[in-house]
Amino acid sequence: MARLRRREVLAAGAGGLIGASGVAARATAAPGSRSGASYDVIIVGAGLSGLTAAHVLRRGGRSVLVLEARDRVGGRNFDVRLPGTNGAVAELGGQWAGPGQTKVLALARRLGVRTFPTYAQGQSVYFHDGTRRTYPGSVPPASPAALADLARIIAGLNAMARTVPVHAPWTARGARAIDERSTGEYFDSVASTLEAREIARVALRGVYGEDAEMVSLLDLLAAIQGVGGDFSTLIGSAQSLRFVGGPEQLSRRLGARLHGAIRLGEPVIEVNWGRRVTLVTPTGAFTAGRAILTPPKPVIGSIRFEPELPAILDQLLQRQPMGAVIKINAVYARPFWRAQGLSGAVVSTTGPVQLVYDNSPPSGVPGVLVGFMEGNAGRPYLSLPAARRRAAALACFARYFGAAAGRPTAYHDMVWAAERYTRGAYSTYNPPGVLTSFGRATAAQPVGPLHFAGDGTSPLWPGYMEGAIRSGERAAAEVLRSL
Amino acid sequence: MARLRRREVLAAGAGGLIGASGVAARATAAPGSRSGASYDVIIVGAGLSGLTAAHVLRRGGRSVLVLEARDRVGGRNFDVRLPGTNGAVAELGGQWAGPGQTKVLALARRLGVRTFPTYAQGQSVYFHDGTRRTYPGSVPPASPAALADLARIIAGLNAMARTVPVHAPWTARGARAIDERSTGEYFDSVASTLEAREIARVALRGVYGEDAEMVSLLDLLAAIQGVGGDFSTLIGSAQSLRFVGGPEQLSRRLGARLHGAIRLGEPVIEVNWGRRVTLVTPTGAFTAGRAILTPPKPVIGSIRFEPELPAILDQLLQRQPMGAVIKINAVYARPFWRAQGLSGAVVSTTGPVQLVYDNSPPSGVPGVLVGFMEGNAGRPYLSLPAARRRAAALACFARYFGAAAGRPTAYHDMVWAAERYTRGAYSTYNPPGVLTSFGRATAAQPVGPLHFAGDGTSPLWPGYMEGAIRSGERAAAEVLRSL
Repeated sequence: MARLRRREVLAAGAGGLIGASGVAARATAAPGSRSGASYDVIIVGAGLSGLTAAHVLRRGGRSVLVLEARDRVGGRNFDVRLPGTNGAVAELGGQWAGPGQTKVLALARRLGVRTFPTYAQGQSVYFHDGTRRTYPGSVPPASPAALADLARIIAGLNAMARTVPVHAPWTARGARAIDERSTGEYFDSVASTLEAREIARVALRGVYGEDAEMVSLLDLLAAIQGVGGDFSTLIGSAQSLRFVGGPEQLSRRLGARLHGAIRLGEPVIEVNWGRRVTLVTPTGAFTAGRAILTPPKPVIGSIRFEPELPAILDQLLQRQPMGAVIKINAVYARPFWRAQGLSGAVVSTTGPVQLVYDNSPPSGVPGVLVGFMEGNAGRPYLSLPAARRRAAALACFARYFGAAAGRPTAYHDMVWAAERYTRGAYSTYNPPGVLTSFGRATAAQPVGPLHFAGDGTSPLWPGYMEGAIRSGERAAAEVLRSL
Repeated sequence: MARLRRREVLAAGAGGLIGASGVAARATAAPGSRSGASYDVIIVGAGLSGLTAAHVLRRGGRSVLVLEARDRVGGRNFDVRLPGTNGAVAELGGQWAGPGQTKVLALARRLGVRTFPTYAQGQSVYFHDGTRRTYPGSVPPASPAALADLARIIAGLNAMARTVPVHAPWTARGARAIDERSTGEYFDSVASTLEAREIARVALRGVYGEDAEMVSLLDLLAAIQGVGGDFSTLIGSAQSLRFVGGPEQLSRRLGARLHGAIRLGEPVIEVNWGRRVTLVTPTGAFTAGRAILTPPKPVIGSIRFEPELPAILDQLLQRQPMGAVIKINAVYARPFWRAQGLSGAVVSTTGPVQLVYDNSPPSGVPGVLVGFMEGNAGRPYLSLPAARRRAAALACFARYFGAAAGRPTAYHDMVWAAERYTRGAYSTYNPPGVLTSFGRATAAQPVGPLHFAGDGTSPLWPGYMEGAIRSGERAAAEVLRSL
């Protein structure tokens, strides 16, 4: 593969370098969209934020083109059809919603995508110190001292979060003293038991897909405010609803209603901006009055801008990395754990898979378990062959649900960090000091004709489809006001 | 400017996109180097690390090509000639050396570049709480309580540093508990006085060009070990020597001795790698058995790799940002402060310029002051016009040295964060949690035919010319062993 690509480059000569550069040039010819034509607005990225923005702008009477690097829409929503099932999918990207996520639930209703509750009947599994125990409800059977620690951690977080203005967390009283701490350091300062420190870290990984040591405490408080003020929402009810047929449908249906305004296989390589903006892809140059850039911040940071982005924004883009999640779906003929009185949910202080849920379709056929390798628990598997990753994941499932869980009929996983146009998951986070140092200079501020969207720019529900939709609406409204 | 570029893109059509993409294509035709030819090793970046590697490889009998994005060599060494002087320069990049920096001092000797001591005679200025005081020696006249705090901070750092293995800081005992703390949080936990906290932050900014809240405590301990074990070296003797005629001479003389192996104006846009490696620039494609990539990590993170870099490296590149330094040189007919018994050195707890030194040539004519806006002290000026930056810098100089300092005969500054091929200064740093989470998977590990150099990959003297040279020697030795 690499050999072939090299030959192509060598054979290409100076005249055709881009075409030979390995960039997929499978642009779907979109009726009415062409290189050289001019649009009111071009949107980079056909995920939920970009597609939402496109619809708002169209409703506002504006001409719109969406450039998508991949050969599919949906971005971090990504479903894989399971052959031999009645339309069931493995959900390998964002998939959950819950109370308070009003935008995504309204969108689903509008598009005719129904929701159903995440399966949560029966006992869950707690795996700690080599021992597997089952428990009802949502509180794992940790030691009383550890549970007291966890209660203190959560109460402390919620109390501090109440002092944080969600749209400007850097203005909170004592913001700098909070922001200089990592969530890991906070957990260690509050909890005296190792068990609580470990469980808190598992929970934090579940929120960010990254380790507690890397995330600013102020970022977590802002995230808590962004979902309504309770840490428990982040690790509980925000995951209580699922979409029948899979979440990617939202993007596919939104995309279909844009009637050919989307060009797939068009990675934006360069952005030339001044009063107007020209976006260069391997197949051409597309000009508009405004552009909305929706990719994750590290992806934007890897695009060439001419002139360069303002230095403060370029520096911020260097400081907001994507988390490190490997998402796994294992498929079984039936959700056999249900028959054993198990919910399918797992909390484990031993990795690599530390969080598991039942991910079966509403019919319960096939049975699907979803598991996550997050942050340091999954990091070694970024460098290991796929077979090792699969073996490690299935060993975890078998540890939690018995030998049958180690023999799925199908296995799918997604290493989001290996995706060129995403560079990680769930979303970007702020390391210590970044929020208070950059303040109002957020990555959501427009720059000339450039506007920015994506869940990572949304103070409400960052890291969720809800945040993506909100950011798309916000950016489209900005553009409509400015045109 | 932007308008012109946009027209060029539109006029270019699909056949000539790269040539019209705004990328400078001023390749210096280097005798013997041409697109399509094959080399043993191609080096990306003609700073000290790349040029050092090139010389080592040539001595090892290997054919070498150096691709440099800018139209000059030197990277973060950058001198500007001062007209009307006897060859004096404004030094706008790395400029100092000191005891223990054996490689850079040996290189200077070899190249016939002499050193001289940084001017440090007379009293220095301490500006705190609106009051300017002068003091002899190296300890500012802070309150006794603040000085006791500072002594505790430094003693604590040095004691902790002794437990940190410089080549593998993540293996230190308790590394994770250290790494989850920011240096800012450490300062606040040790110091009870605001004055000491402020001075410690100024010192930390002087080391990293970034704020203490963003930098991992373990990174600082590793940096202390990297300069010999004493924090005071970082803020003192590491800056005790200068280069007669300016530090950029080292790179220029190294470059001249490579006899045309350097191509300027060749930004690498894409790296195709497999068993061999092809580097694509706007003017052509260059193939070699090995490549050594020396740009700062965020710049490497913005290059397109085909196939993609390993996910773990891509994630690490997202997590090691460049600091935020604006460096200022103000030029005066004479170093008038010397006649007043002043050394030219300033420590100020009020910004934006908080650190100043005498930067005159050995003759003392002209007089030059060098000042730094670092981290949050300088961040607002990233977004303000150059005239505001100049006015703010000169107001600081006048505050420290009287009205005459506000009226230089020449003024030069360098916003390193606005430099596309550097993206900040002094160097990259590790935010909390990164060192221990990634461990051995450093950004210095070779990947197939790709090797990495640059000061930020050197455990010894990172952020210094010394570290750059050491990294170049290390990478060249790796390549020689592997070929």
